[in-house]
Amino acid sequence: MEQQSQKPYVIGLDLGGTNSVFGIVDARGEIKATTAIKTGSYAKAEDYVAACVEALQPIIDTVGGMDTIKAMGIGAPNANYYSGTIEMAPNLPWAHDCVVPLGKLFSERLDNIPVGLTNDANAAALGEMVYGVARGMKNFIVITLGTGVGSGIVVNGQLLYGSDGFAGELGHVIMRRENGRLCGCGRRGCLEAYCSATGVARTARELLATTQRPSLLREMNPEDITSLDVSIAAGKGDELANEIYQFTGHMLGEACADFAAFSSPEAFIFFGGMTKAGDLIMKPIEQAYNELVMPIFKGKAKFLVSGLDGAGAAVLGASAIGWEM
Amino acid sequence: MEQQSQKPYVIGLDLGGTNSVFGIVDARGEIKATTAIKTGSYAKAEDYVAACVEALQPIIDTVGGMDTIKAMGIGAPNANYYSGTIEMAPNLPWAHDCVVPLGKLFSERLDNIPVGLTNDANAAALGEMVYGVARGMKNFIVITLGTGVGSGIVVNGQLLYGSDGFAGELGHVIMRRENGRLCGCGRRGCLEAYCSATGVARTARELLATTQRPSLLREMNPEDITSLDVSIAAGKGDELANEIYQFTGHMLGEACADFAAFSSPEAFIFFGGMTKAGDLIMKPIEQAYNELVMPIFKGKAKFLVSGLDGAGAAVLGASAIGWEM
Repeated sequence: MEQQSQKPYVIGLDLGGTNSVFGIVDARGEIKATTAIKTGSYAKAEDYVAACVEALQPIIDTVGGMDTIKAMGIGAPNANYYSGTIEMAPNLPWAHDCVVPLGKLFSERLDNIPVGLTNDANAAALGEMVYGVARGMKNFIVITLGTGVGSGIVVNGQLLYGSDGFAGELGHVIMRRENGRLCGCGRRGCLEAYCSATGVARTARELLATTQRPSLLREMNPEDITSLDVSIAAGKGDELANEIYQFTGHMLGEACADFAAFSSPEAFIFFGGMTKAGDLIMKPIEQAYNELVMPIFKGKAKFLVSGLDGAGAAVLGASAIGWEM
Repeated sequence: MEQQSQKPYVIGLDLGGTNSVFGIVDARGEIKATTAIKTGSYAKAEDYVAACVEALQPIIDTVGGMDTIKAMGIGAPNANYYSGTIEMAPNLPWAHDCVVPLGKLFSERLDNIPVGLTNDANAAALGEMVYGVARGMKNFIVITLGTGVGSGIVVNGQLLYGSDGFAGELGHVIMRRENGRLCGCGRRGCLEAYCSATGVARTARELLATTQRPSLLREMNPEDITSLDVSIAAGKGDELANEIYQFTGHMLGEACADFAAFSSPEAFIFFGGMTKAGDLIMKPIEQAYNELVMPIFKGKAKFLVSGLDGAGAAVLGASAIGWEM
């Protein structure tokens, strides 16, 4: 036990559909070494893991070998913390139609160190707790604003996994119960359909198509508009673009008001590309929240942007699972 | 420690606006002795506690004195678990405009045993976990259907109190964002405004006023209709009354589908007078849930009615806090 707790590093793996990015991380969140491979070039999970371990070996050597590694954490789509598996992940050729015991496969090839998996939003929440703006907090919610809307919920200092490991899907609470937008999950009106980066672009296209209002965004092919374009236009004073972020932030604040009734968190922490819009998105969130939340919760919660460094954030989040093992 | 864990009883206090009901309860949930006093006959909290202890003394003696009592649990409105206080409770004359350290006041007069407080819905959740249908469960949600809609959320085997002790207000998530009914909390569209016993009566009055449809309920003065009357009419085959329960159950199922995205519970457990309507309310809840929930959660959650005995349920729930201390 004594020796175990002195091992100074964990491995973090940010397993995405395109790239698998590794980092060896110390307890302060410093990334000591990194490497990466392509995720999709393998038909079998065993081959993928073998390629990962081969890529890892040199960076493990640079920090002093496997004796310095306490554990490994993996942030991955469709990852189940309880079982250590990836289940039916549509974007992973070696896991799209099966259940892969990825934790076990890595552990077997890495001196049987503990290996933990969870989805990327949960990994982000652990990352904030271990290295980021949630240090010392016991009740908070991380909301990831990317292609989708994800969430990691911490209560009593523990990540909320629920009965099956799949708790914390706040991108899929229903915000519009009548005539809601179709969501990738097959239902209508989910938060994600409006407040993800793709949702923001969709709001832009809808407003451009249904109104005659002038906007810098009219100079673009509507299909090419991204949330970044909306943010840039808003930065130039474009009224319509500003309104799109107002609408998006307002709905996020509305959603957070419901989340408060659930777990009364100390803070809502926003993570991902869209947070680069800064006050443009954060101000309307906080404003709508305090306007709409139950009186008892008014003014209590903090609204924060992730404290993890952009480039390494996902690897840091993944590595944080390692410290929890 | 050894001795403490052998004390066989806890005191439970169901502190309501009208009555304060006490029970001495063993670990299997048997109520060994009970007593009660009127809650509101005291201007000062100290006097209320003195009267409680006076009423308790004889029943404590019947089970063998204070040496047999491990702890006390109190289920009360506006109770804060973290601080052991009752805060600004509008229906309690000795606590309506102040913060009363009720746990401390009882402990001082009862040989310094630990005393815990929480609201009645949280107490019900603990009661289900300790004595009821949630024994062995680590993730479940109790929803109380009474004058209001309350909830107690258990995650990882622990009650969810949140950052301030006030988590678990699921009666106040917003179900209708446009033209929602006014709720007692001052906002519009809350679950409670539709699915509490008073909400059901309100639905009945609305349907009677806005349609010409025949119903047994037309024989009553609309202002006198209660959820029990609707249930009785439905039992007699009244179509309108059936539709009211369909509507109510559907909205509860819709709400539970969102709650699943939050904590993915193993079961939803319904507690309180309205559950007496049985399948009339439970069937539409489960049906709407499985129709509307994210595919990943479909068919997983159980829908149960409280396993605690009606008359003693609230006292049992309160006593369960005692075992947690």
